[in-house]
Amino acid sequence: MFRRWRNCLAREFIWIALYSRRVDDHASPYREAMALAIAEAELATISGDLPIGALVLDESGVVIAKAGNRREATQDPTAHAEVLALRAAAQVRGDWHLDGCTLIVTLEPCPMCAGAAVLARVERIVFGAWNEEYGACGSHWDLPRDRRLNHRPEVVSGVLAEECGNLVRDFMANIRTQGGK
Amino acid sequence: MFRRWRNCLAREFIWIALYSRRVDDHASPYREAMALAIAEAELATISGDLPIGALVLDESGVVIAKAGNRREATQDPTAHAEVLALRAAAQVRGDWHLDGCTLIVTLEPCPMCAGAAVLARVERIVFGAWNEEYGACGSHWDLPRDRRLNHRPEVVSGVLAEECGNLVRDFMANIRTQGGK
Repeated sequence: MFRRWRNCLAREFIWIALYSRRVDDHASPYREAMALAIAEAELATISGDLPIGALVLDESGVVIAKAGNRREATQDPTAHAEVLALRAAAQVRGDWHLDGCTLIVTLEPCPMCAGAAVLARVERIVFGAWNEEYGACGSHWDLPRDRRLNHRPEVVSGVLAEECGNLVRDFMANIRTQGGK
Repeated sequence: MFRRWRNCLAREFIWIALYSRRVDDHASPYREAMALAIAEAELATISGDLPIGALVLDESGVVIAKAGNRREATQDPTAHAEVLALRAAAQVRGDWHLDGCTLIVTLEPCPMCAGAAVLARVERIVFGAWNEEYGACGSHWDLPRDRRLNHRPEVVSGVLAEECGNLVRDFMANIRTQGGK
């Protein structure tokens, strides 16, 4: 009896996991925006920067800012794609409050970038691949869902995750092959 | 016998706590730098920004960058004093790696700023007052000592803590009196 229930539950969990993944990935309304963020990420590699791209959409879903990583290009330690996109969006609106806006980014934000998104009061963070090393939206830390902060954006994960992850993996593999830094 | 040991240990802990506090505050080699950061913090209020100031010292203790909060002045959600000082220091050195540098700041950094300091590889973070609401160097989070990050700066706390804390408290009390935002 116990074994039957256990097997039944296990099957249900597998379906839930597969279904969640399917909804997250293939039916996401953010796939088009993520494709644009991927294009920004690809541009970042020209300066030797890690291929990460970000966009900010306003309340109507219109792109108001986009950026790729520029740390190496500008030698600015804070020039991650998310920070640059948030700063550009605030400049466009003339207001640091980005209420109603959505931050789209190809890789799960690090603590600095997740902190910046919370401070900017974005309504939603949508990311592609999970950041297994420094992710702060569910992987290692979960700042957007932390009750100690005064604003908690919604988080949507896994949009075009494979494409986003491959960008970073290919870039790193290329560096290792070249024996680079 | 057990009670005697317990009392003895308790006395020792009280002395260690008092001595640590004394060393942190009155004999700190960072008091002079913190006084300069306080001056930056005071300037920030001109634009209605929260009085927080930051400096970056190089390996020899020379000030290479300083900044006050500029979020309201520039309408940039990431324009905290620490981020601005780190960006300015990297510009001065022409390198985003701030190895050997010390970040001095009047208030314990938030998650975004603590994350930025770790990313910039500063050797040390020295702060004045504890940030009871959003502190990420020991109060609510402890990012600089988090083993999941690839760099862990030393943290020195409580330098001119009372002066630094009073700046923020007086500013907030003033806003409340004026019935401001």
